[in-house]
Amino acid sequence: MNSFRPDLIKPVVTQLQAYDPYKRPGQVKLDANEHPFTLPPEVRGAVMQALAAVPINRYPDPEADGLKRTLAKRLDVVPDMLVLGNGSDELVQMVLMACGVPDAVVLMPTPTFSMYRIGARMLDQQAVEVPLTETWELDMPQMLAAIERERPRVTFVATPNNPTANCFAGEALRQLIEAAPGVVVIDEAYYAFSGQTVLPLLKAHPHLLVFRTLSKVGMAGLRVGILIGNPDLIRQIDKVRLPYNLNTYSQVAAEVVLRHWEMIAPEFQTIIREREQLHDRLEHIPGMTVYPSQANFLLAHVAAGGAKVWEALGAHGILVRYFPESATLQDCLRITVGTPSENEFLTTTLQTIVSELQPLIRT
Amino acid sequence: MNSFRPDLIKPVVTQLQAYDPYKRPGQVKLDANEHPFTLPPEVRGAVMQALAAVPINRYPDPEADGLKRTLAKRLDVVPDMLVLGNGSDELVQMVLMACGVPDAVVLMPTPTFSMYRIGARMLDQQAVEVPLTETWELDMPQMLAAIERERPRVTFVATPNNPTANCFAGEALRQLIEAAPGVVVIDEAYYAFSGQTVLPLLKAHPHLLVFRTLSKVGMAGLRVGILIGNPDLIRQIDKVRLPYNLNTYSQVAAEVVLRHWEMIAPEFQTIIREREQLHDRLEHIPGMTVYPSQANFLLAHVAAGGAKVWEALGAHGILVRYFPESATLQDCLRITVGTPSENEFLTTTLQTIVSELQPLIRT
Repeated sequence: MNSFRPDLIKPVVTQLQAYDPYKRPGQVKLDANEHPFTLPPEVRGAVMQALAAVPINRYPDPEADGLKRTLAKRLDVVPDMLVLGNGSDELVQMVLMACGVPDAVVLMPTPTFSMYRIGARMLDQQAVEVPLTETWELDMPQMLAAIERERPRVTFVATPNNPTANCFAGEALRQLIEAAPGVVVIDEAYYAFSGQTVLPLLKAHPHLLVFRTLSKVGMAGLRVGILIGNPDLIRQIDKVRLPYNLNTYSQVAAEVVLRHWEMIAPEFQTIIREREQLHDRLEHIPGMTVYPSQANFLLAHVAAGGAKVWEALGAHGILVRYFPESATLQDCLRITVGTPSENEFLTTTLQTIVSELQPLIRT
Repeated sequence: MNSFRPDLIKPVVTQLQAYDPYKRPGQVKLDANEHPFTLPPEVRGAVMQALAAVPINRYPDPEADGLKRTLAKRLDVVPDMLVLGNGSDELVQMVLMACGVPDAVVLMPTPTFSMYRIGARMLDQQAVEVPLTETWELDMPQMLAAIERERPRVTFVATPNNPTANCFAGEALRQLIEAAPGVVVIDEAYYAFSGQTVLPLLKAHPHLLVFRTLSKVGMAGLRVGILIGNPDLIRQIDKVRLPYNLNTYSQVAAEVVLRHWEMIAPEFQTIIREREQLHDRLEHIPGMTVYPSQANFLLAHVAAGGAKVWEALGAHGILVRYFPESATLQDCLRITVGTPSENEFLTTTLQTIVSELQPLIRT
């Protein structure tokens, strides 16, 4: 087969390191911040019954009206304030496509969710990164200076932030929103585990957009991201949405699960309790520093070396996330809070691994 | 609620008329070129059994390996030659994002599938349209001149073309592919009804990309578009794909349906037979001109007026597509071939409508 001419592809893509979803084999999956519990049998039954009635030969509802109404009610907003995406990944792209222009600046504190940067580069926009402080707080003087200097068309801030796990102070977020000349996206993907939200600020700040997602609350397989904002702004962003971006099965299943929310919601309290317990137990492992978390995962610094511990965990069938590409996070691991037995297995395995890697600290 | 500043959105989007999926109520849906048959009970049972085992709390397989392997086998290519999209809509966007740059020219003969133009505009690229001839053929002198003049980064040609229903000559397509300096996408969405393909040209032309889709063969609700091309080019385009763009339910269901292909394939022969019969019957209605079709729909010119007939059909619960925004297609209707009874109902209804609208022709 003849080979293609590399100039068919734009240089920014040829040079692009694609998002690596770190697909690896493993028995205990604590690497993707997924909810560890499958659907309760009763909910699963209701979902299956609804899916059986879906005519897959027909296109999906392009407006996902049923799902949007159900979500709007749960979020206490009107459906006109929502755009749904094929995961938040697609929402990142939509916001950048609607609000950004070629070469526009997209601002973000880092480290953070890498799709903001990758999304900007794919669309020929400039990602400007402002490092967080050593305790993973927003560096407000630097953020405000960057806003003043760069006049970003779009600013992304995730809170709780991924992978640092902490929420940023509400007052800092408010200051950023007030200072920013363009759209500000506050990504609340982990809201279920933090309970903190900027939604009340929407009324006074029509350039604010809030992300939520069903991925962290038990429905990662469905790919449903939620964008909440001012109805006029939402109407414009909705124009760049691909008309049938949400398949029928996901629309139908998500609606059924949301109607059974009272059966799922207590699981998030379980995760929060497990998180606190796991935090305490991991802190007691020699050489491990665990950062405070308001999400469904923990970020831990391991003196024994991120890569080494990651590899040793993998050998025991435990998958966690590490960050070989990041200087800041090189010796950090991101560990999703799993089921109680998974957390137990993780803790004892980590204890063994670290004691083997650090015999001097151990004794 | 405060209103937003319009300059938050880029002007091309403010001015953009979004793709209108023409969601309208109606009992007989012949407006979206969907396959009219639902899954055979045996296949549906197998799909449901597979879906019941899906852990929706986990992210989908980012590479959709199982589905890709199954599709590759059926297409007689290797999996490395495939990228799957959330419908072809997303593939249009991916190709433009990977190959186009801001202000790059995207060439297309028109009328055609409107997402090529909309996709280009959303990404700040320039859609250059070359009108088809009066018999809906490629205007080769104009196409070749446009290629020479504009040096398009991407050229889109659908064959069979939507909404004109005809295939373009293989020799003309070969000439375009040889002349084009950038990537050429041949969209074979309706291949199941035409049997014509440029896939054999892939080996000699590494800048050729072929689209297929599951939407026209009974799985529109799943949103699975298929991009086939040179593995090196595919590897680059795959970089701009959102990592989890295909939800788990769609991956699993599509794979099961494809494994039962021998139970579905005869339905496409039924559609082809129905198409020919419907073509002949509609041709006999006074004032109707029906163009030749190699797809699962017919394009018909109605002397009584496109808008009037469209409205009258709607009043009888029959949905077809019309094109109020197009000067060329103003009095044309695009009619999907339905089930035998739907086609019968359409024919008799159209006869009545036209005789009421055109009493003079009738007598």
